[in-house]
Amino acid sequence: MTTERASRDRARIVDVARAASVSRQTVSNAVNQPHKVAPDTLERVRREIARLGFRPSRAARTLRQERAGAWGLELNSLGVGRLGSILDVFLVHLTSDSRHHDSHVVPFTAADNGDPIPAYEDMLASRIADGFVLTDTRHGDPRPGWLRANGVPFASFGRIWDDPTEANWVDVDGAAGVEAGVRHLVDAGFDRVGFLGWPVGSPVGDDRRLGWARATAELGVVHPDWHATSAQGLADAAAAVAPLIDAVGRGGAVVCASDVLAVGAWQVLVERGWTVGVDFALVGFDDTDLAASLQLTSLRQPLASVADQVLHLLGSWGTEPPSPHGLLLTPELVIRASSSPAGDRNTERGTT
Amino acid sequence: MTTERASRDRARIVDVARAASVSRQTVSNAVNQPHKVAPDTLERVRREIARLGFRPSRAARTLRQERAGAWGLELNSLGVGRLGSILDVFLVHLTSDSRHHDSHVVPFTAADNGDPIPAYEDMLASRIADGFVLTDTRHGDPRPGWLRANGVPFASFGRIWDDPTEANWVDVDGAAGVEAGVRHLVDAGFDRVGFLGWPVGSPVGDDRRLGWARATAELGVVHPDWHATSAQGLADAAAAVAPLIDAVGRGGAVVCASDVLAVGAWQVLVERGWTVGVDFALVGFDDTDLAASLQLTSLRQPLASVADQVLHLLGSWGTEPPSPHGLLLTPELVIRASSSPAGDRNTERGTT
Repeated sequence: MTTERASRDRARIVDVARAASVSRQTVSNAVNQPHKVAPDTLERVRREIARLGFRPSRAARTLRQERAGAWGLELNSLGVGRLGSILDVFLVHLTSDSRHHDSHVVPFTAADNGDPIPAYEDMLASRIADGFVLTDTRHGDPRPGWLRANGVPFASFGRIWDDPTEANWVDVDGAAGVEAGVRHLVDAGFDRVGFLGWPVGSPVGDDRRLGWARATAELGVVHPDWHATSAQGLADAAAAVAPLIDAVGRGGAVVCASDVLAVGAWQVLVERGWTVGVDFALVGFDDTDLAASLQLTSLRQPLASVADQVLHLLGSWGTEPPSPHGLLLTPELVIRASSSPAGDRNTERGTT
Repeated sequence: MTTERASRDRARIVDVARAASVSRQTVSNAVNQPHKVAPDTLERVRREIARLGFRPSRAARTLRQERAGAWGLELNSLGVGRLGSILDVFLVHLTSDSRHHDSHVVPFTAADNGDPIPAYEDMLASRIADGFVLTDTRHGDPRPGWLRANGVPFASFGRIWDDPTEANWVDVDGAAGVEAGVRHLVDAGFDRVGFLGWPVGSPVGDDRRLGWARATAELGVVHPDWHATSAQGLADAAAAVAPLIDAVGRGGAVVCASDVLAVGAWQVLVERGWTVGVDFALVGFDDTDLAASLQLTSLRQPLASVADQVLHLLGSWGTEPPSPHGLLLTPELVIRASSSPAGDRNTERGTT
């Protein structure tokens, strides 16, 4: 039965037509425009469709509807498969969810990362995709404006940083996440809190730094010089964080813009012989497997919800009135031993 | 110009027909069966195709050829996005390469990881994919036999472990890679070499362990008890490797079945205050970003070649005589500080 359905002999429209003694057009109407078919004929055709296991080809539907039924997703070779990247997990959620939205996701790459538009054009012109999911939005990003100008459906995981009027995005509130991390540290007795971030100019990194500045101000534990920046790599992070750890001192803490940066800090502490979570506390961001492995407190992005909302935006493109603003989701603080005094070490997880 | 090409007003077959004063069928023939068109007509049609920027729709070609032009790739939620996984990088190569093979890659997930076949059936029945790229092949894998029995094109990154007659795969020679790692360590003066692997029963892990046993036997440095196993996680690896490091002793080395396992061992060494690469050497496998970040010597899988060969196997399905055996590629040993005496530390990379 299983074998029969998948074989190259699977039922064609002509088999259904013959079995139901109707024309191919009637079978087509029964599938696509059932109101045009007389009730008893419709029932007979549907019975044969079920009996023969006929499924209308997506290619045929595509041609009729002029739709590919697919959303393109640019895999930036600089973004996917990199240490601590969450886009891999996002892609799994997006792929899995897309079937519930009667679509699928087609990844593609741009030949030139500096000029991605031709790759988007090509996906549209060859009708492989009807629209796009954007990730890695950034300052000077040419994609949202080009897609909007050409009436191409899109939805973004990440704010459209250069255009406050563009609301077709879902993002995670990094500032609020870092704020929650700072509050948790102060509550846990680590009231001297520094921040290790990415170099200024990355909108995601700048947003996370803002959360640290806001929380320390609100809690009255401001030390404006206690921050440092590093590229996204363990060795860079270790070098950048060492003077910051010196400044904050034993008994303090550092919140990091990513788990990778936090692991760099973790290395420095271990090499000094300090017990992480007792002598010094750390909070990462993204809750990657790296964080779970090292018992690192981290902020988890709700990637399943992001995927679902992005697909909803795409599915309702042009049919619902556009939302006046984007959707900002709150990350979840996952508390582990790296920020937890000895007594709380059994708590694998907590929420702000 | 750019905008024009991608706009919804892009040229249709009817526009070309009108401009060239021919029928739509002639335009179609000019694209698909040019030998049927008179030379001067063909030239006229082609000129209009170029002038108007007409591109035949993939959906239309699909319907005519009964092909989706796409290969499905199951994203096992257990495999992608996990610490140290190389499948993310493989997907980028596959996606990028597929355009040169006039196809694209459509990821999908199975609702039930224990019974993936219905998801494959569904991809075929809805004609989203014409065939599949398999990854994560394993003992008891139902997929190759099912695909073969149903005449569905496939090619595998990973040996078809249960069926030695099945040659439609490309894989990386893990045993040869580990052997190269052991030889390098012995050459570098670390002649007491243990192995940290995955629990017995994983075909990939067992293959890598075999390389260690073979190399130590050939080099006359056999210590049959110097091996341990661990699940793929830092904490597990650290716990499993500690007694192995004790047994091998200062001045020795451990080759690991993955970078993640090697990082677990690296942690143990750092906590003991040993200098990695001087007091004790480590070699990982997969050359992930984790390895590069920690200056860990590792074996790099040639993922771009694997992707290219897999697409070649798929593209030649049914047209070339099947190869009598699969294709085993050799990984490259990337030498870094974790296995290099002080003098060689500037060498970022070397090859066996």
